[in-house]
Amino acid sequence: MKTMRLNYLLDFYHMLLTPKQQRYMGMYYYDDFSLVEIAEETDVSRQAVYDNIKRTETILESYEDKLRLYEKFKQRTVLLDTLDELLADDYTSRMDDIIRQLRELG
Amino acid sequence: MKTMRLNYLLDFYHMLLTPKQQRYMGMYYYDDFSLVEIAEETDVSRQAVYDNIKRTETILESYEDKLRLYEKFKQRTVLLDTLDELLADDYTSRMDDIIRQLRELG
Repeated sequence: MKTMRLNYLLDFYHMLLTPKQQRYMGMYYYDDFSLVEIAEETDVSRQAVYDNIKRTETILESYEDKLRLYEKFKQRTVLLDTLDELLADDYTSRMDDIIRQLRELG
Repeated sequence: MKTMRLNYLLDFYHMLLTPKQQRYMGMYYYDDFSLVEIAEETDVSRQAVYDNIKRTETILESYEDKLRLYEKFKQRTVLLDTLDELLADDYTSRMDDIIRQLRELG
């Protein structure tokens, strides 16, 4: 099943994949091709495409376990949204706390 | 030569190294052991320790080429420092621009 999570993990870690893994994942997650369409395009079996994509998804999850770039991105987005709201409301008194949290995210 | 840059790259990417690479690099960069001290501690030759550390430094630079975590960290630090100054001076009018730049860093 295609998920937004895998789409994000691909954004963050695609540079660490092989060209072949990047190609299959790009067609599947960015171009929204079906497994059959990728199989036809690359001239391999549907099962081979499926196996490659599943293995690559596991690799992406393993990178996220180690580096947590997507998790930190989500946390940073929440903090920036809050900062935006505070800016609109001119609640400068709470901004120091948010800057501190952003720094701690590394 | 030990550099602050390698220290940072180790912070960002140590999770992607093998336990042996982590051990040598940790002793060299975090604990500030000399090559000879690491060789004595791990019971291998000074040359073997040196080769391992040089190879691992190349791996760390390769990860930085691909993911740019240290480069983004430096840019983010500058932006946060500026935000801190603006907060102190109450220059809220420029904060929108800084928030935008932070978002673009991903």
